[in-house]
Amino acid sequence: MTEADLTRWRQRVEAALARALPDPALPPQRLHAAMRHGVLNGGKRMRPLLVYATGTALGVEEAALDAAATAVELVHCYSLIHDDLPAMDDDALRRGQPTVHVAFDDATAILAGDALQALAFEVLAHAPQPAATRLTMLQTLAHAAGPAGMCGGQALDIDATGRRIELAELERLHACKTGALLHCAIRLGALAGDATPAQHAALDTFAAALGLAFQIRDDLLDIEGDAATLGKTAGKDAAQDKATFPALLGLDASRARLSELAVTMQQALAALDADTRALTALARQAIERQH
Amino acid sequence: MTEADLTRWRQRVEAALARALPDPALPPQRLHAAMRHGVLNGGKRMRPLLVYATGTALGVEEAALDAAATAVELVHCYSLIHDDLPAMDDDALRRGQPTVHVAFDDATAILAGDALQALAFEVLAHAPQPAATRLTMLQTLAHAAGPAGMCGGQALDIDATGRRIELAELERLHACKTGALLHCAIRLGALAGDATPAQHAALDTFAAALGLAFQIRDDLLDIEGDAATLGKTAGKDAAQDKATFPALLGLDASRARLSELAVTMQQALAALDADTRALTALARQAIERQH
Repeated sequence: MTEADLTRWRQRVEAALARALPDPALPPQRLHAAMRHGVLNGGKRMRPLLVYATGTALGVEEAALDAAATAVELVHCYSLIHDDLPAMDDDALRRGQPTVHVAFDDATAILAGDALQALAFEVLAHAPQPAATRLTMLQTLAHAAGPAGMCGGQALDIDATGRRIELAELERLHACKTGALLHCAIRLGALAGDATPAQHAALDTFAAALGLAFQIRDDLLDIEGDAATLGKTAGKDAAQDKATFPALLGLDASRARLSELAVTMQQALAALDADTRALTALARQAIERQH
Repeated sequence: MTEADLTRWRQRVEAALARALPDPALPPQRLHAAMRHGVLNGGKRMRPLLVYATGTALGVEEAALDAAATAVELVHCYSLIHDDLPAMDDDALRRGQPTVHVAFDDATAILAGDALQALAFEVLAHAPQPAATRLTMLQTLAHAAGPAGMCGGQALDIDATGRRIELAELERLHACKTGALLHCAIRLGALAGDATPAQHAALDTFAAALGLAFQIRDDLLDIEGDAATLGKTAGKDAAQDKATFPALLGLDASRARLSELAVTMQQALAALDADTRALTALARQAIERQH
């Protein structure tokens, strides 16, 4: 039943993303095509699934979560387009497809990312939640996407490249870079579901552990994986001398840390007093995923 | 008195921008410094002034307009940072200073722009207007910044470079590229001032004419100006074979068009039934400015 939920939510958000994106037949066609290329690319949709899993656990109708799910994924997709640029990670391959600047050009990739971020806020500003809730959702997404969240984490990551950093700094970096938007997805679902303060607290604990687990798994995959299953270039982190958990802790300790985080997540969900089967499944996926 | 208003509003928005930007002493310092470099650079603050001029004409307190003025300027500044990148206009000089990617690096300039856009929405989401008004303001800014507005106009501009386009297409291009955000600034002031439908209509006419006038003046300055008064590289348009009004209409017809737009703006303001001295002064500045 949980698997059926995840499949249905994935279909929901694909349809909602396709509807939100501008018509590829209308000008500027090249920009619109680049935006679609960067979004409708077979992504895992982890953040939208977290919105649906959290919101429905708190009794929200699926349809009422489409806008939040779409908005958070648009922000994620824009960040990938910009990350892949030659001036950033310089990646030619994403989910087995040419990245946006390769399929189009650098200028179009920059603009497509910029346009997707604006579109994310436009979609969320039209969400069906009451005005006060919607404003808190918008504040949450803007904060998570900005200098204190995702963009700040990216900058910390660049600052850390090529120099020795401590574990605490690496965790802070990822709490912003990857964690902020995952946390935001869960928080948007919780806000839509009028979570109690105790439920918000449990979900915050869950989200912090999930974000960290997601990143450690990502680091491990970059070492263990190959481009074919990964859909992107493997071994980039070591080649670019990036700060990673395996580089700092070693492989075994990184895997042990992942197991600890799984326990933290289970305990947080147990405290939620709701049907958390979908959230449990997503936590397991984050830890066990092969790509 | 009008000049005193404009000077005071310029000071207001400078202070509000400085407050909104993240602390340069906190990490990631390089990102924060780049954001400040791209924003606190002696810009004309045309868009914030339009917010204050429109809002106060409709009876809004100045302090209640700071958030909207700040938000629209943050979007404008992020767009300039990205426009100046080597992959876009490749400009090394902006307002007499090195552009952000020259003073820092391309990756930091991309991230600083991205972070400023998110910050713009965060600031506006905390504006003091009632929730329903604030949501409409957020919808307005997101729409103006996105694929149907500024980013779309940029893409149309790239598509038009190096090929012959008609006047109608050039006007459409600028209605998006420059016009959308100027229009948005006026619309945010009007929304804050609970404008009547007739006032919205008059301001829409004013805004459309102002946006076009602003761009024609910009094109003329690129031909007439020099880098010293302009604070940026002159003659770039012709060098890059960009579609411009002087290239399409000739210099004299472009100047005549500017005079017609001045009349349109005067008539629209006369229909507004409010103290429009500041808006009149800004319209004159847009048409007569030397940089």
